[in-house]
Amino acid sequence: MSFAKLDALGHKLEALEHALSILRADEATNMPSGGGEKRAEAVSALAGMHHAQATAPEIADWIEAAATEDLTPDERTALHEFRRQYTNMTCLPAEFVERQVETTMRSEQLWREAREKNDWKGFAPALAGVVALVREEAARRADILKLTPYDALMEQYDPGNRIADITPVFEDLKVFLKRFVPEALERQAQRFGRRPLKPLQGPYLVDRQRALGLEMMKVLGFDFDHGRLDISHHPFCGGVPTDVRMTTRYVTTDFLSSLMGILHETGHALYEQNLPKQWSHWPLGKARGMGVHESQSLFVEKQIARSAEFWTWAEPTVREYLGREALDGWTLEDILAHVHLIERGLIRVDADEVTYPLHVILRYELEQALVLGQIEVDDLPEAWDEKMREYLGLSTLDNPADGPMQDVHWPGGAFGYFPSYTLGAMMAAQQWAALEKAIPSAREEMAHGRFDGINGWRRDKIWSQGSRYSTPELMSRATGEPLNASYFIAHLERRYGS
Amino acid sequence: MSFAKLDALGHKLEALEHALSILRADEATNMPSGGGEKRAEAVSALAGMHHAQATAPEIADWIEAAATEDLTPDERTALHEFRRQYTNMTCLPAEFVERQVETTMRSEQLWREAREKNDWKGFAPALAGVVALVREEAARRADILKLTPYDALMEQYDPGNRIADITPVFEDLKVFLKRFVPEALERQAQRFGRRPLKPLQGPYLVDRQRALGLEMMKVLGFDFDHGRLDISHHPFCGGVPTDVRMTTRYVTTDFLSSLMGILHETGHALYEQNLPKQWSHWPLGKARGMGVHESQSLFVEKQIARSAEFWTWAEPTVREYLGREALDGWTLEDILAHVHLIERGLIRVDADEVTYPLHVILRYELEQALVLGQIEVDDLPEAWDEKMREYLGLSTLDNPADGPMQDVHWPGGAFGYFPSYTLGAMMAAQQWAALEKAIPSAREEMAHGRFDGINGWRRDKIWSQGSRYSTPELMSRATGEPLNASYFIAHLERRYGS
Repeated sequence: MSFAKLDALGHKLEALEHALSILRADEATNMPSGGGEKRAEAVSALAGMHHAQATAPEIADWIEAAATEDLTPDERTALHEFRRQYTNMTCLPAEFVERQVETTMRSEQLWREAREKNDWKGFAPALAGVVALVREEAARRADILKLTPYDALMEQYDPGNRIADITPVFEDLKVFLKRFVPEALERQAQRFGRRPLKPLQGPYLVDRQRALGLEMMKVLGFDFDHGRLDISHHPFCGGVPTDVRMTTRYVTTDFLSSLMGILHETGHALYEQNLPKQWSHWPLGKARGMGVHESQSLFVEKQIARSAEFWTWAEPTVREYLGREALDGWTLEDILAHVHLIERGLIRVDADEVTYPLHVILRYELEQALVLGQIEVDDLPEAWDEKMREYLGLSTLDNPADGPMQDVHWPGGAFGYFPSYTLGAMMAAQQWAALEKAIPSAREEMAHGRFDGINGWRRDKIWSQGSRYSTPELMSRATGEPLNASYFIAHLERRYGS
Repeated sequence: MSFAKLDALGHKLEALEHALSILRADEATNMPSGGGEKRAEAVSALAGMHHAQATAPEIADWIEAAATEDLTPDERTALHEFRRQYTNMTCLPAEFVERQVETTMRSEQLWREAREKNDWKGFAPALAGVVALVREEAARRADILKLTPYDALMEQYDPGNRIADITPVFEDLKVFLKRFVPEALERQAQRFGRRPLKPLQGPYLVDRQRALGLEMMKVLGFDFDHGRLDISHHPFCGGVPTDVRMTTRYVTTDFLSSLMGILHETGHALYEQNLPKQWSHWPLGKARGMGVHESQSLFVEKQIARSAEFWTWAEPTVREYLGREALDGWTLEDILAHVHLIERGLIRVDADEVTYPLHVILRYELEQALVLGQIEVDDLPEAWDEKMREYLGLSTLDNPADGPMQDVHWPGGAFGYFPSYTLGAMMAAQQWAALEKAIPSAREEMAHGRFDGINGWRRDKIWSQGSRYSTPELMSRATGEPLNASYFIAHLERRYGS
């Protein structure tokens, strides 16, 4: 029984993944500083064992043999994902992976220093080395997966995503945003003219912020029997589906910073906690991919937690937990002005939901050109500046640290990942639209802090599906049609339009 | 290079041990309840990988071949411990281990229920099954290790400990204690006649108790860059040497309960944190054994932290941390009356340092008789009762739950482990005596909360030695003579005598 061998392998890999996830969460939340060196050694050794076990040559034979066995429909679907994972993990020769790890590690180190000094010239040769390897990687993956090079890179993060489908959707969005961003900023300026942004002051006590965050998580459906909230410098959602480790960071002068972060991570957590348990040791039981995962966090953060309806319920809750004086004299409008604030900026990670997609589309276009050899690393500062001026009216020519050097992705060799962020935002909007068609009272329910119906739809359509379908197919099945920019556009117009 | 293979294996095993230790600490301190099932699966799978890698047949060849290689003195010593560990781990056939795991698991489950119901008859057959396997295990180990059966069992916990050496020492101690316990109790009664035991009242706030515990740990030498203190239901000292995870449990009505527990675990922690770092991935770099480990925790708890000199310094510190009102009206004598309280009791884990060894010697005698087939499980209640009456003047004939059913060790198949507790107490006393000879001001230093000199001696003699020597040799080298009951006896006479 070859499928049984794959099944047993799945249990071993799940154990190692469990250890790695908990060790990483522990490192960020609990580990004393002196424990770092040995922890890094342990994690690296365990990751090595995982890789060795997941890519063992005999697995190829098991997969072939299992295909001829009498399998249940679930097992057959599982086998498809076993094959996909194995192919993706073994399509690069060990010698190449070693070269790549070494090159990207050195490039990342150099990037940290060079970014600090705004030293593009010092960094560019290292990035050129990374890009050369990315081109080689894309060609190798493309060859084995029978995909175009950039599609082959994206395939790692969201199976089934293709340039041919994404580019037209991004094009629609770009055309819209180039027109919409100035309009929305103008409207915001007019509104602030009438009613200036009320500054958050605090102090908002950490214990109270924490209690508020826990309450919001609970109401949104987070299962505290299978997860917890801790503190870390960089907030994340880690752990395993039966034991999700979420973190946040508190600032006593601004309760929204931690709260909105918690709500975002809660979206990731709900997906993990509601994955199909019986498949947890198969690739089939894992979350579908980066874009879908981001769609779940952005669904909670943007669709739910930045909506006026949500704040109808949340505003008194915030007062209750932070104390009457916390928002003394504030109206719902004052809070919405904060959570709907838009600004043109150079930095992607600081961007609001209106300008963010333009940052991503810029990278999507440039990294395709880099992978296909249409531009070289030396062309990046000018190419970046040109697009930045066109999309957001900002120049970075004299400031590469806030231009092509701002993200860790390229120095680390992660090409094909950026689109997932904006695809996630678009999928979330499209999911909300489909959900609202199925549950017309959805906004009304939010306004009363009720999320059972909303979560029921999401569990049914997304969470319980694991990796059964490719990303586009999962979306089509959940929403009744392929990815379409119009839902995200409608969402932005509703929230930021006239 | 076969030694290089052993060295590489050591790194892999260290990584798995690191993961297992941190996962276990996390489980006790952080894991939400629903995470337990998958955690158990992961830990069991990782333990299985560790066992498979540590007992692989080719290791025997590496060990043989390495013995002929040109090794440094340290490597040669390391090789000796690699061999010892490998022999101990492989001397039982897999088929036997499986039978044993199954039998002891069922016996432990049954024991939990039966103990609750005080049902010896219902439990005895399961224990008889365990004892049959322990006899088989002892015979197998004895055969391979060329030791007597009981020595072969002890060898797992404290290498080099032999009945021939221990029995005379225990005999001296037993003779002394049978006389001394009634005398000490009489003296205590007279003292309480003059000055009754002041009741602890509290409430002692958890935050303050925690701050006090952290301060004491720091003063005693705990390195917070390489460890931390958390809360768990059963206090322990776990983690890894570079990241020691200590726990305690707070009771708001009794600060001494948590504080003395913290001080005990700090003794374990100091040993782990000061093991030789360069050998951490070799068996040679591990703590020597259970008895030596216990000697380090008891050194801190009994030799240091229950001494009058320690409390000369600690009393004002306690007031400072718990608040002036915490010990209002208390004198040093009042505290010492608490930390020196002795009582005859049925339960070993609740016993004080004077009566505790009699509990252990009783088990040491009975488990030898069981292993050698001189008595059977059915004889246990009467044999136990007879010794309990002789040593402590208490009967358990109608109360087996507080007699032979009180500990998890026998139901779990752990025979040969009990002596380590009292050997630890005796070694600690003998170490203190040697230390005081080398550092005549040691008590004076304690009275001023200074532990650098004391820790320096311990680091030099014990901690830095790892597993370089057998337990008896480590003791002889540290103290200048073999284990001798007179030091522990002198310690008890000094503290509890007239």
